[in-house]
Amino acid sequence: MINYKKLNRKLKSPYAIGLDIGGTKALIMITDSNGTLIYKEKVKSSGKIHRIVELINDSLFKVKIPINQIIGLGIGVPSATNSNEGIVMDAPALEWVNLNLKKELERHFDFPIYIDNDVNFAALGEKWKGTAKKSNNIFFIAIGTGVGSALILNGALVRGHSYEAGEIAYNISESDINEGIYNELGEFGVFESKISGTALSRYIDNPKQLFKMYTEDNGDVKKLINNFITQISINIVNAVNLVNPEYVVIGGGVSESMDIVLEKIQDSVNELTPVKTTIVLSSLKGDAGALGAIAYVLER
Amino acid sequence: MINYKKLNRKLKSPYAIGLDIGGTKALIMITDSNGTLIYKEKVKSSGKIHRIVELINDSLFKVKIPINQIIGLGIGVPSATNSNEGIVMDAPALEWVNLNLKKELERHFDFPIYIDNDVNFAALGEKWKGTAKKSNNIFFIAIGTGVGSALILNGALVRGHSYEAGEIAYNISESDINEGIYNELGEFGVFESKISGTALSRYIDNPKQLFKMYTEDNGDVKKLINNFITQISINIVNAVNLVNPEYVVIGGGVSESMDIVLEKIQDSVNELTPVKTTIVLSSLKGDAGALGAIAYVLER
Repeated sequence: MINYKKLNRKLKSPYAIGLDIGGTKALIMITDSNGTLIYKEKVKSSGKIHRIVELINDSLFKVKIPINQIIGLGIGVPSATNSNEGIVMDAPALEWVNLNLKKELERHFDFPIYIDNDVNFAALGEKWKGTAKKSNNIFFIAIGTGVGSALILNGALVRGHSYEAGEIAYNISESDINEGIYNELGEFGVFESKISGTALSRYIDNPKQLFKMYTEDNGDVKKLINNFITQISINIVNAVNLVNPEYVVIGGGVSESMDIVLEKIQDSVNELTPVKTTIVLSSLKGDAGALGAIAYVLER
Repeated sequence: MINYKKLNRKLKSPYAIGLDIGGTKALIMITDSNGTLIYKEKVKSSGKIHRIVELINDSLFKVKIPINQIIGLGIGVPSATNSNEGIVMDAPALEWVNLNLKKELERHFDFPIYIDNDVNFAALGEKWKGTAKKSNNIFFIAIGTGVGSALILNGALVRGHSYEAGEIAYNISESDINEGIYNELGEFGVFESKISGTALSRYIDNPKQLFKMYTEDNGDVKKLINNFITQISINIVNAVNLVNPEYVVIGGGVSESMDIVLEKIQDSVNELTPVKTTIVLSSLKGDAGALGAIAYVLER
């Protein structure tokens, strides 16, 4: 058991809060200003502001940190986000459309609040404490229920002109067009439909089991996973050509089963472009987003 | 005729030099610190250092600008370039391999010298005085003999981890792989082989005439140009998804004949991704690189 009172006396530095709000689960983390973990809890997700306020206050109460010792709060949300103003554009799972989450929460808290896309914060987490090892040039891909990505270039997050950078779910190829597949009205992502957890679960519900079956002699699974490798490699290659990242970090739920195909993806990428990059799997897994939110707070 | 003596007295501010060294031609421009053009000359290209020194000294002599009034010199070269140290990695046309061009020229000049990839500087030029209108998020594609690109994101050039960002010439698609086409040893670019001026000239030597024939009823040309439109649209779409630029600027020699297909490319991109962008043709044409080199000098 950590003696928080003693810890608080010892650390005169203030604390940062990171909150990663997903579609079903929310993860809160509190660290000191060195990034040492003080508190971590996973709860059911909610789009209700008073539930978020409650979660933060309860967490601080549990570790006996007075609110005036908080330097800031970072929140990652599953939506394109105007991080300048703190506006969440569209998060259906939380029933938020053009919600100024920053403003809503500033009614309850005095410390600075930063809102960003969850994948953006996860990329910052991987840079800070993960496999991307403080690199200034990172392409982070999150493969979960859906597919998202984030870019850190010249040491900073790339959010894009309208905060939509990283939307590789919509990537498309010549054969898609020949087959008449489009990102019609933005309602679905063509690339996402090929490699997401949802896509893989069409064959079997458990990605872990699916990737395990790949080592066994199962023709259907071999074909499915080989296609997964090809699709992801092509899209990594074209991104690497464009932004020349030192690391490509693959995160998200599906990545936790991908050890077995990582080398094949690296080989394939090496073969398809002369621009060198190192492909790694996320080491922070589900913690990346909340940690990245804290990294962002501490950076300010 | 400009009265340079009078101009020099009037402008107390110093001058900047931009030099764009291509495979066959080199363009030198001198402006005052407001970017007003003082001098411009196109000469035969040379990889010999003493020829470059001569070109700069002769140009300054012609406009009677003393060397101590120069704030800096920017040089764009057709190669990946370590812009930090001023090293040109590989410019076959100039017979430069790992040449520290900055160091070589610092033996002759006291003012600051900046070396960068020519397409990077052209993108800066388009941001400064071209169709990209000071935007902080620009994807610039140069279609000439070959195909290159450059990114300005968060207001700054993206050079990448090993100064190879923008190498979209190597982009690849699923059908390329199925057909066994690779970027073997980096010796050729698969995407480049589809849309470059060299690729187009396989049909007819003059891109201007080729694009003109597109409006006429020529089945072969229609097919060729329609494929050009599809290929360029797919690659713009995937780049737009990734980096969400406000403007996609198409420059390079071939772009000067592309008015007739610009709207079709924009429509196609609009149809293939929900992420919005505005596609424009370069307005600076051959001047973009030298102007961008000057923009970079003035920015420092």
